[in-house]
Amino acid sequence: MPISKSKNELFSSACTADGLLSEAEVLNWVNLRMTQNKYSVQLTPLTYLKGWSIDSLTGNISHNSGKFFHVEGLDVRISTDTIQSWQQPIINQPEIGILGFVAQKFNGVLHLLVQAKMEPGNVNFIQISPTVQATKSNYTQVHGGNRPAFIEYFIEKNDGKVLVDQLQSEQGTRYLRKRNRNLIVQMPDDYVLSHSDDYKWITVGQLQKLMRFPNLVHLDCRSILGSLAYQLDFQQHPSGSALSSDEFYLKVRSSICADHADAEYDMPTVFSWLTQLKCQIEVHSNLIPLKQVIGWHLDNGVVRHESGCFFSVVGVEVQASNREVGGWCQPLIQSIDGGVIGLATQVRGGILHVLIQGRVEPCLIDILELAATVQCTPENYLDGTHSPLPAFVELFQSESRGRIRFDSVLSDEGGRFFHSMQRHLVVELNEDLYLDLPPNYCWMTLRQIQEFAQFSNMVNIELRSILSCLALVA
Amino acid sequence: MPISKSKNELFSSACTADGLLSEAEVLNWVNLRMTQNKYSVQLTPLTYLKGWSIDSLTGNISHNSGKFFHVEGLDVRISTDTIQSWQQPIINQPEIGILGFVAQKFNGVLHLLVQAKMEPGNVNFIQISPTVQATKSNYTQVHGGNRPAFIEYFIEKNDGKVLVDQLQSEQGTRYLRKRNRNLIVQMPDDYVLSHSDDYKWITVGQLQKLMRFPNLVHLDCRSILGSLAYQLDFQQHPSGSALSSDEFYLKVRSSICADHADAEYDMPTVFSWLTQLKCQIEVHSNLIPLKQVIGWHLDNGVVRHESGCFFSVVGVEVQASNREVGGWCQPLIQSIDGGVIGLATQVRGGILHVLIQGRVEPCLIDILELAATVQCTPENYLDGTHSPLPAFVELFQSESRGRIRFDSVLSDEGGRFFHSMQRHLVVELNEDLYLDLPPNYCWMTLRQIQEFAQFSNMVNIELRSILSCLALVA
Repeated sequence: MPISKSKNELFSSACTADGLLSEAEVLNWVNLRMTQNKYSVQLTPLTYLKGWSIDSLTGNISHNSGKFFHVEGLDVRISTDTIQSWQQPIINQPEIGILGFVAQKFNGVLHLLVQAKMEPGNVNFIQISPTVQATKSNYTQVHGGNRPAFIEYFIEKNDGKVLVDQLQSEQGTRYLRKRNRNLIVQMPDDYVLSHSDDYKWITVGQLQKLMRFPNLVHLDCRSILGSLAYQLDFQQHPSGSALSSDEFYLKVRSSICADHADAEYDMPTVFSWLTQLKCQIEVHSNLIPLKQVIGWHLDNGVVRHESGCFFSVVGVEVQASNREVGGWCQPLIQSIDGGVIGLATQVRGGILHVLIQGRVEPCLIDILELAATVQCTPENYLDGTHSPLPAFVELFQSESRGRIRFDSVLSDEGGRFFHSMQRHLVVELNEDLYLDLPPNYCWMTLRQIQEFAQFSNMVNIELRSILSCLALVA
Repeated sequence: MPISKSKNELFSSACTADGLLSEAEVLNWVNLRMTQNKYSVQLTPLTYLKGWSIDSLTGNISHNSGKFFHVEGLDVRISTDTIQSWQQPIINQPEIGILGFVAQKFNGVLHLLVQAKMEPGNVNFIQISPTVQATKSNYTQVHGGNRPAFIEYFIEKNDGKVLVDQLQSEQGTRYLRKRNRNLIVQMPDDYVLSHSDDYKWITVGQLQKLMRFPNLVHLDCRSILGSLAYQLDFQQHPSGSALSSDEFYLKVRSSICADHADAEYDMPTVFSWLTQLKCQIEVHSNLIPLKQVIGWHLDNGVVRHESGCFFSVVGVEVQASNREVGGWCQPLIQSIDGGVIGLATQVRGGILHVLIQGRVEPCLIDILELAATVQCTPENYLDGTHSPLPAFVELFQSESRGRIRFDSVLSDEGGRFFHSMQRHLVVELNEDLYLDLPPNYCWMTLRQIQEFAQFSNMVNIELRSILSCLALVA
């Protein structure tokens, strides 16, 4: 694979495992940041959360400023052949945040400026995060704190070149139609950017390889990397040549570089599959008072489902030394353990394909988005009172049908989620394994998924998260 | 331009001006259909519309079955730097209709099966329409009529190959978040399809050339043709070679075939432009009772604005001999005259670019969509009580800045709109004319727009309409 010829600097960076720092140096830096900052996060009843109130009429949870976010109730009705309906708490945060990497070339290779950032819901306090994560409340300084560092690279005119700039959805099962702006802005080679010890430069390839450490790379990094679409010159990237090797990363590269004509389904067929799905489904989601949500109760300062399944809304009190403000309280969502994001892959017609589902979620902008093969928490199905386990969970439960190519536990965003982790799994199925696909599944090349990722409201955050784990280097 | 080498059959068909029938034969056929069917459409007060009721409490207009569509009120608030707000009537039709062409190859060239179809709002009764236009109410036979002919080619499994299948928006100023499924399905060459005299086979190129006749080609044809994205092999279509000629259609071809790398702005830059616009704008549109809409009144059986501007809601009583049912009554939207859809084009860096605006409309799914350079009715601005004339209207008012390349009056869909016409204009600006662009404007190649057209919620119907007029043959 003559990748060195690529003029696409993001792609080249993804193919580079060595940067200004070695992986050991990066890990050492994160550990050091962890010890040099003092944090404390304590669970606190929602009823005693300083700065936050529970409305006596609605039960909705809001900050006294009216900003940040609200926890409200949601009534959901999804109609296909049958009608599914339920109620649940939902985060209402009607503003578009910014998730951005500043990028710059060093030694000829594009590096991303990453931050060792503390968030109250992180199991290990500090995770490797994008240069900037900021809600509009943050950067318009509603909370009276400091303006987030580097935000000017994304909201003001400068010499940067935009490599990625997409509105992408957040979790459609937890947020009400929430989107963030996912950005990478490349500064000129001679630009001098000074930063504190909270920041380091690493390559895309390094960041992807760090995904194999549990809970180290922040979901917002994965969200941005999962939004990439390498603008490649296909002539420089003959597909197929890598497949004699058993190196999975070479198969990933060739799937990223594959011409659409060599995919199992051409683009018009994939579009039609998606359109037909959207036409068969109607989603009605309406806000209701949190107090009225059936099956959920405020119980000892925690909002939880009476079955103990799904998730809870908890309160935390935070002390930290290097955030915009020194201390604060807030609600967080705590999902139950055992979540799985599984991506099944298979070499089909000489090219690695991934098995994608069109997944309806109650609060997406447009009915459904492309999602990983499996996105579920099997524990929610144990009591047998609702639907059977989703399709294809069994593909990830043993190596009898293929080889596990990636396996790591990664977290939801610690600014809204408390110790919420999913096991991220990639399996490469045996070439001779035949799967019978439900109508909402489709085999696609990585190149085809990248085509969709360029447009808003197409690739859900869990799929972006697992896609970002597909490293292009060994 | 070695277009004959193209394997893309839609593109080849668009480059073919001769089909099974000559243009004269097609025109003759339409005229004949017009004389062989008896139609009568009479304006009738909304208050006496058989089968329809005006709710005494809300003033909303609905069919007694609860199906088809409702005319309700809309409260709009659009926030950018400033806040714009207004109220208006809106069509609420929460179901996805089907607009589809059946296609088949004759003499090696793809033809589309078009229908000479009567609709009550058409100025000349009959227009050349897609093979099928059907609301869900139609094809589920709510009205008790016949099932629309050929609908099975689009909703049932058959041997057809899907060439286009996209959810595309309808008018975001008239419909509440309405989308239709735009389809082209190609049947195998040896398939035998029988049809009545209401149908004929014509090439894409023929259909595009017929756009120059006033009110002849139906908006739904233009909607589908404007959703096309030719899957071209760029090596076969060197750009630039056509530009020594003054033939505009050759410039159009080369812009459709242009490599993104040769466009004025690369794709990441165009995406970023669009994302930034979306982040700066918030649209809040809420249904309200029609009775409460400020400035609008039911007056002698017509709902109209007190200024006489914008549009009215009128009632009609219809008699026809070849529709699913023999006669019916319904409300229609009558826009005031003088609407303009104008597309400015210019050769920039050797490639024809078009000037696109990101246009906010109150009822789009995602804030704004790509729109033509100008989409407005200047008459609405004459009284001077609201905003100044939109940008660039003057480009279409004389030939001093360039050459008018297309000029034809075309209608809105006659099933919902009564004698509502817009002048469709394409101007090719002089190469040395410099335009200062407002932030919501961007130069794009036709290839780039086609990239967007492949995805839902990206290209508005007025832009699709004018794009469909850009013929690829002389």
